[in-house]
Amino acid sequence: MLPFHRETLPCGATLLLKENHSVPLAAVDLWVAAGAALEREDEGGISHFLEHLFFKGTPTRPVGVMDRQVKALGGYNNAATSYDFTHYYVVLPSEHVNLALEILTDALLNMSLPTEEIERERHVILEEIARKDDSPLGKLYDEFLKLAFAGTPYERPILGTPESLAGIDRDRFVDYRNRFYGPGNLHVAVAGDIHPKSVSDRLAELLGDLSPSEPSRPESLDGAEELKRAEFEIAKDVQQTYLCLGVRTPAVLGTPEEIGLDLIAALLGEGRSSRLVYRLMEREGLCSSVSAFAWTLDRIGLFGVEACYQGEDEHEVLSILEEEFQRVRTEAIPDEEIEKAKTQLLTGHALGLEKNSSMAGVLGRNSMTDRLEEVVAYEERVRSLSGEEAQEIVNRLCPPDGFVTGYVRPEKTR
Amino acid sequence: MLPFHRETLPCGATLLLKENHSVPLAAVDLWVAAGAALEREDEGGISHFLEHLFFKGTPTRPVGVMDRQVKALGGYNNAATSYDFTHYYVVLPSEHVNLALEILTDALLNMSLPTEEIERERHVILEEIARKDDSPLGKLYDEFLKLAFAGTPYERPILGTPESLAGIDRDRFVDYRNRFYGPGNLHVAVAGDIHPKSVSDRLAELLGDLSPSEPSRPESLDGAEELKRAEFEIAKDVQQTYLCLGVRTPAVLGTPEEIGLDLIAALLGEGRSSRLVYRLMEREGLCSSVSAFAWTLDRIGLFGVEACYQGEDEHEVLSILEEEFQRVRTEAIPDEEIEKAKTQLLTGHALGLEKNSSMAGVLGRNSMTDRLEEVVAYEERVRSLSGEEAQEIVNRLCPPDGFVTGYVRPEKTR
Repeated sequence: MLPFHRETLPCGATLLLKENHSVPLAAVDLWVAAGAALEREDEGGISHFLEHLFFKGTPTRPVGVMDRQVKALGGYNNAATSYDFTHYYVVLPSEHVNLALEILTDALLNMSLPTEEIERERHVILEEIARKDDSPLGKLYDEFLKLAFAGTPYERPILGTPESLAGIDRDRFVDYRNRFYGPGNLHVAVAGDIHPKSVSDRLAELLGDLSPSEPSRPESLDGAEELKRAEFEIAKDVQQTYLCLGVRTPAVLGTPEEIGLDLIAALLGEGRSSRLVYRLMEREGLCSSVSAFAWTLDRIGLFGVEACYQGEDEHEVLSILEEEFQRVRTEAIPDEEIEKAKTQLLTGHALGLEKNSSMAGVLGRNSMTDRLEEVVAYEERVRSLSGEEAQEIVNRLCPPDGFVTGYVRPEKTR
Repeated sequence: MLPFHRETLPCGATLLLKENHSVPLAAVDLWVAAGAALEREDEGGISHFLEHLFFKGTPTRPVGVMDRQVKALGGYNNAATSYDFTHYYVVLPSEHVNLALEILTDALLNMSLPTEEIERERHVILEEIARKDDSPLGKLYDEFLKLAFAGTPYERPILGTPESLAGIDRDRFVDYRNRFYGPGNLHVAVAGDIHPKSVSDRLAELLGDLSPSEPSRPESLDGAEELKRAEFEIAKDVQQTYLCLGVRTPAVLGTPEEIGLDLIAALLGEGRSSRLVYRLMEREGLCSSVSAFAWTLDRIGLFGVEACYQGEDEHEVLSILEEEFQRVRTEAIPDEEIEKAKTQLLTGHALGLEKNSSMAGVLGRNSMTDRLEEVVAYEERVRSLSGEEAQEIVNRLCPPDGFVTGYVRPEKTR
């Protein structure tokens, strides 16, 4: 991914630039260090709600104009909200990169937040919340995250609840935006067939009026009480059983611990010859899917397994999972296996940088958490970790008595 | 997409090479000019069946080894079958591009076709066929394609039927492979961080023993009788009504007619301000989705519309579709709208070339139909077509009395 260019604009916003002249396209990705885990108790879901309103018009670009301008060039725009961030992006022919910069900064500085759009999108989000229940995995993770993150700011759902959304009016949006959308929290990443100097000049001009602000620094959760073993079960109109089991991990972003967890997750669940896929799918045919995850957020994380199987096989599935967790904690990991997992992380990383939009995303996301150096040194960081270290990390960060286990099961009677 | 390199190997296979050093990855894509529309009556589904068996082992790489070798490097392999072609690809770190070449050519030349794997995959494909019925669109298109392509080799389903699959044994596979998998039908595209000379030398070596063969030239369907208006209706456990209406078009691959149909499809159904999406979704809120398609196959094509709506709105939806089809046939198309559609085609084309795997796919597919020059000149070809020409093309190729209309509707009583 080298070389790329980083600079701090006069207003304090950060700009990341990556030239790639293989196709005449550009992606502009605006990252804001504001997400669900930074919301106040009484504004649950506001980050995601604001994301819905971001492109809904400014004094000079009424509702619909931004979408039309981008689409008329064959491009697309979109956005996403998570616990720690929200980001907005436009992908289009690179000769129009200035239009992307103009649209994103116009929305950022001048979004109108019209009352009728607020009501319309409130309705859309309520439907989004309802729709989660239609999917077994949506329902499973909703409850799982609530329990696994209980007692931390991460326990509230990103979409909010019907109750929390009802309390959000235009003034709340303005207040929230003033709190978080200042230049100290902004990271703009541009990747593609661009002239860096011209992008940098134009963006400095567009953001020129912004008064500097400090980045948000939410307090750490190191004191958060430890997760206790917990279990839940949801009955639903499904054929198979959906299982998620996992444990809360501490803040490890940018540390060797993060890479250790990623390696063990790959070794357990990445590819047909990984330990869990091989035993539960290839050899025994017990699961229709199984995967492992290490999810690292800014101030917390999750390590666990997701599986799908016929209810009558549950006992066997659970004991194999238990066995394989035990093995990963206690038996030496063969060099060959840890090497394979490393290669999978490294190639996955490279595959994630093929498109301009993903490149801009990786740069923006990592700049936001001050981790660009770790991205540059990713290969070396992965290579330098041993199997013993990864094992020590998983033992230390994933206490066996702190697992949350959730099931979505077929209803007994129909 | 320029420059790329094309050469004919000594055995007669075609090699396409595209260097791209932005990430250390490579995609190798092997195209074979053999698909469902080239099958004999009594071997329906054999192209797709063979696709399932391709990576299932050779004398030197027993079942499972190819998958493992690729996955151990973090890469992936896959394949797809359509009416006119089958293709097989491997994406992995570019330093291992030779392994990808070796695996693909080993499978091509030495696939074992073990009897137990034939039986296992026969079972998997029967499940695939059954699963199509679960999805309303799967069921809709299955019937739609059968009717729209009636009387041509395209009327048989790509997956085959339980009956046709039952008759396929190992000897049939060997016979089919001998008929179609000769070098005249092979196009190998390699894109990524590669040294062209080294790839070309290695591939020539690997394919060295292959005796030359002529490319398959299936007879044209110009004489195929014209499609008559037809309608069908399927009741299913769904909430909304799913509609597909379309007309059979002649062979237009690589001609201005192909671009004319693509332009009109974009103008009707691409993006929020396209005619159908604007009227049926944005303004009237009648449809939850609507799109238009121009699908160009080697010897035939389809032009049509797909929509999803509440049953009680059907009359209004149909009359708006009728109105908009009429408008596109008779009213002059404003320059601005045709320009927008052109830009959408061109940007979509560029977005489809961002990844090495898609670049290799485009090169392989177009080499197979002798259309590389048209791909290179794509922008010029799109730019040079006028709105009047596009209108004339849609009028000539899409006779209003040749439409097939299909519905999947909610069951009346539950």
